[in-house]
Amino acid sequence: MKATLLTIGDELLIGQTVNTNASWLGDRLHGLGVEVQRVVMLADEQPAIMTALTQARAESELVVLSGGLGPTHDDLTREAVAAHFGVSLGEDAGTLARIQQRYAARKQPMPVANRKVAQVPEGFDVLPNPVGTAPGLWWSDGTQVVVLLPGVPSELRALIREAVEPRLRERGALRMVRQRVLRTAGIGESTLQELFGDLSAWLSQQLRLAYLPADGIIRLRLTALGDTEEALEARLDAFENHLRQRAGAYIYTRGEALLEEVVGEMLKERGLTIALAESCTGGLTTSRLTDIAGSSAYVRGGIIAYCNSVKREQLDVDPAVLKAEGAVSESVAAQMAHGVRHKLKADIGLAITGIAGPSGGTPDKPVGTVWIGYADSAGAHAIMRHFTPDRLLNKSLSATAALDLVRRQLLQGAT
Amino acid sequence: MKATLLTIGDELLIGQTVNTNASWLGDRLHGLGVEVQRVVMLADEQPAIMTALTQARAESELVVLSGGLGPTHDDLTREAVAAHFGVSLGEDAGTLARIQQRYAARKQPMPVANRKVAQVPEGFDVLPNPVGTAPGLWWSDGTQVVVLLPGVPSELRALIREAVEPRLRERGALRMVRQRVLRTAGIGESTLQELFGDLSAWLSQQLRLAYLPADGIIRLRLTALGDTEEALEARLDAFENHLRQRAGAYIYTRGEALLEEVVGEMLKERGLTIALAESCTGGLTTSRLTDIAGSSAYVRGGIIAYCNSVKREQLDVDPAVLKAEGAVSESVAAQMAHGVRHKLKADIGLAITGIAGPSGGTPDKPVGTVWIGYADSAGAHAIMRHFTPDRLLNKSLSATAALDLVRRQLLQGAT
Repeated sequence: MKATLLTIGDELLIGQTVNTNASWLGDRLHGLGVEVQRVVMLADEQPAIMTALTQARAESELVVLSGGLGPTHDDLTREAVAAHFGVSLGEDAGTLARIQQRYAARKQPMPVANRKVAQVPEGFDVLPNPVGTAPGLWWSDGTQVVVLLPGVPSELRALIREAVEPRLRERGALRMVRQRVLRTAGIGESTLQELFGDLSAWLSQQLRLAYLPADGIIRLRLTALGDTEEALEARLDAFENHLRQRAGAYIYTRGEALLEEVVGEMLKERGLTIALAESCTGGLTTSRLTDIAGSSAYVRGGIIAYCNSVKREQLDVDPAVLKAEGAVSESVAAQMAHGVRHKLKADIGLAITGIAGPSGGTPDKPVGTVWIGYADSAGAHAIMRHFTPDRLLNKSLSATAALDLVRRQLLQGAT
Repeated sequence: MKATLLTIGDELLIGQTVNTNASWLGDRLHGLGVEVQRVVMLADEQPAIMTALTQARAESELVVLSGGLGPTHDDLTREAVAAHFGVSLGEDAGTLARIQQRYAARKQPMPVANRKVAQVPEGFDVLPNPVGTAPGLWWSDGTQVVVLLPGVPSELRALIREAVEPRLRERGALRMVRQRVLRTAGIGESTLQELFGDLSAWLSQQLRLAYLPADGIIRLRLTALGDTEEALEARLDAFENHLRQRAGAYIYTRGEALLEEVVGEMLKERGLTIALAESCTGGLTTSRLTDIAGSSAYVRGGIIAYCNSVKREQLDVDPAVLKAEGAVSESVAAQMAHGVRHKLKADIGLAITGIAGPSGGTPDKPVGTVWIGYADSAGAHAIMRHFTPDRLLNKSLSATAALDLVRRQLLQGAT
């Protein structure tokens, strides 16, 4: 099935809005086996919309128009489509009632302009909008489909998932598709690929794997295509098992949970508390942990020891060791972790000390060198990582690596 | 001048890449007085590119094609354009030499495929790429312009600024335009508009003002259009002066500096150090301050007092006050600021304690209630803010408000 997308709105052409509807629809339709041939961004002008629709219908079996279905005078998509088909617009009683109900539920009167949203071109089906007022509109002659959707991203997405996809599926136009995400931490893309080894026996048009890396986390997106849900789930299960056999320790979750969420859950389950001593990350790691609602159950707090005197005075780092080995060293990281655990009376102490850059590097300890310390009742130790020349990226990668160290220690039974 | 943009690349159609080139170009050209009529996203296919180019040339005086100029076999824009014009491609010696130099400078051999990038359709001018290998290409017959640009955003932007705009300007096709950004902190959009009052005597097609808010910062973008640079700068100066008279204290910088940068500069100039006590922000404020390279000159560190015992034991908050007034209170915020200043031996102590949500609110102190404490040699005090129901937004707005409090204290001569 071939498709053309017409995305409508002056705001797209003057760059006020980035066209995320186009990329979302492209990704979604591609996954369903629909080939998007062309995407056009158009102004809110009736002749332009009519010309583009004629051209799109000449080249594609599926034409999706988005935007310009709102209540204001510059929303002209509905009118342009009616003119293209040579049909009139009529008020849909069901749609009007739904809109009136939405306002009544909020105890607000419906603005008169909103009646316009209930106008439907003759011959079009109404696709009720589960999250907004303007409904989707569907036309088909058996071989071609024309769909109108509101431009608000949440409404467009809900209508595609809940109304458009099921109708296309009924027509047998879509492949059955299931996706699954595995998230990894503490490993780079190329090393992960090496661990997986040759996947050619697994991968095909029916089973695909995408690597989506960001900030030290790699999202593995598994996509299975086929005939029945059961077969797809079974194929994804088998593939996930294979990937876990190869690199299970790096996979921290199935789904989209953040690392700080998963670490938080592990701490909560075990009834453990944590305290952090941060130098080069400047509080970022604790901030991430406390992004999670309910984190006060396990985060006691932290000490941001940005200068060495704070490391000595607040974290009891040995001045002689600090002088001899430097602030970015195994011993200091371990002592910081031990110190903050003791000071803040936590079960676990986590410490990060490194050279974020851009300056401060030496031949021995270049920018991007980071030591991460971990302390619990069994003692303290530290691991080293080498990251990048970029300051902000180093902060982010260090925070991720530190959280991942906690995860691994807890998996190994640390208490 | 009317324009059509053809953005080329399979990655756009399958949603792998969001088309930020289209929005950037739309914004830029709109500012220059060029009307973008249509943007088309196309696959890397020669017939599709040729059809779209024919249509674009029939409707616009300026056609910009981006993408598909790289060295790989699926980069076909150059070939499609040559076929459209019925001309042959020839190797441009200057371009080839520049590419070879780039590789030589990195002591790498030039991959053979890169020769392709030096191919130029007959009749096209080469626009040397200041930041990459593939040059821009320019064709004009006196009334119409066709420009080819690489799809890498940094390269496309540099070529537009440095090569395309000057050439269009020479043709008299562009309005003279100057933009200026003022950044505000500590004030909402509607309150700011009220302070500015009626601006209708100022604003026109020749002078525009856009409000661009994000995370407690509002960027005010002033745009002046006209004939000479001097006139434009004078108009912007006069308008900026007017805005500063109305709301000067809220404008923390001209340009794009972050609030943490400006506060850091102020501390450095005055030779002052700062320490932070963070509760609901969990380290975010200190992390922002330490995002700035060189911040170790003025950031001593912080104490993240996520639980009350850390507030008592590490920040010497009075347990009786903590019990009587609660952790989110004026007294506790001031005591935290005082405590961290003393403990970490800093000139300034800054504290944040609030209810980030989603739970923990009470009728007296709903979610979003935040106290910000400030301490220096003159004593300690605290201010209250009410933010939103959203946890992450509250963290971010609290950090911004705390940094802004430091800025205002320093402006008032605090030491």
